Amino acid sequence: MVANMMSMENPLFKTYLFYLCVLGLKMLTMSILTARKRFLTKTFINPEDAISMKVKVKTDDNVERVRRAHLNDIENIPVFFVVSFAYLMTNPAVGFATMLFRAFTAARFVHTFVYAVVVIPQPARALSWGVGYAITWYMGITSILNLL
Amino acid sequence: MVANMMSMENPLFKTYLFYLCVLGLKMLTMSILTARKRFLTKTFINPEDAISMKVKVKTDDNVERVRRAHLNDIENIPVFFVVSFAYLMTNPAVGFATMLFRAFTAARFVHTFVYAVVVIPQPARALSWGVGYAITWYMGITSILNLL
Amino acid sequence: MVANMMSMENPLFKTYLFYLCVLGLKMLTMSILTARKRFLTKTFINPEDAISMKVKVKTDDNVERVRRAHLNDIENIPVFFVVSFAYLMTNPAVGFATMLFRAFTAARFVHTFVYAVVVIPQPARALSWGVGYAITWYMGITSILNLL
Repeated sequence: MVANMMSMENPLFKTYLFYLCVLGLKMLTMSILTARKRFLTKTFINPEDAISMKVKVKTDDNVERVRRAHLNDIENIPVFFVVSFAYLMTNPAVGFATMLFRAFTAARFVHTFVYAVVVIPQPARALSWGVGYAITWYMGITSILNLL
Repeated sequence: MVANMMSMENPLFKTYLFYLCVLGLKMLTMSILTARKRFLTKTFINPEDAISMKVKVKTDDNVERVRRAHLNDIENIPVFFVVSFAYLMTNPAVGFATMLFRAFTAARFVHTFVYAVVVIPQPARALSWGVGYAITWYMGITSILNLL
Repeated sequence: MVANMMSMENPLFKTYLFYLCVLGLKMLTMSILTARKRFLTKTFINPEDAISMKVKVKTDDNVERVRRAHLNDIENIPVFFVVSFAYLMTNPAVGFATMLFRAFTAARFVHTFVYAVVVIPQPARALSWGVGYAITWYMGITSILNLL
């Protein structure tokens, strides 16, 4: 079974590809959120953008908050992409692995929501980050033990 | 055909690997561009670097501009790496997929050029970013629909 | 041999997966290092975090140093993930490729250590960064030449 792990006949590989795309497009959406906040608050970091909007270059915490949420995605999601790929190769139970993919993805959407869309007091942000973080560690450690 | 998608006998897989490397090395080149701007403007962010150059720690917008171009690569290119991998598995027409890879890569080079090498007024930067962005969304949506 | 490159019967593919996980978990550890520095220096960037610790939002160079080390990982390690994947497909000698994976990984650990754990004067940081950088370029150029 491992030999054709990376085949469209393997439902877990299809699940993996599906969540790659969902999480990738979720990350791209952060650029739209940032641009929206920039235009709403007329906050631009490049002189050529500020001039065209007839404002001065400045920063705004509402913009920076979305950028921090984006950076948090950049810190966590690409690592998940590669670690979950290694995890797939350990031939995990399909149902359990699918649940981990769903939980990671849901946690990342919740993280962005409570961080940058509607600011919800802690520990909402810490918990949603922690779920994704713990799942990635679990997959990484499981894969390393399996590869030794 | 899908079964041996990831084989060196598949010309589209070779195209994919080729653009992975070109885009990866392009991203690494941003570090050289940043270092060059740092030395030209004597702008260092680490005290130990500033001291060795006999200057104080400071920031400079020419350096920050290159760093923003680099960050934009980091926001967009790794997502493309994974989404285009999923797209490959949908068994697209080779000629069309190759064109998308070329267009994405060209757009990212143009983006860096107009953002950080020779600053060209908008909409040059927005358009070049938008081409890569739209291609990634197209590949992602196509892949998701194909995987459902 | 290339046809089943991505199989658990291929020792080099297992080596690749192993270092994916080690480097991925190393990157995740940067978040812990940052959080530790934040609590030690009571430095928070989000108002909701600062309020719960009864301090004002501020920045601190010890925190920023860890964040710069993390950003340097983000700039270099994901590129290595994809370029080394392409390099694997060129069917390199197993011993040599394994040595490159080990050297890259060791260099990244040293980089973080001398940058953000115990600050060691230059050229420690430049050299450790340079080893990883040179290995990625070597793998990228070798892959491109092999794919042409």
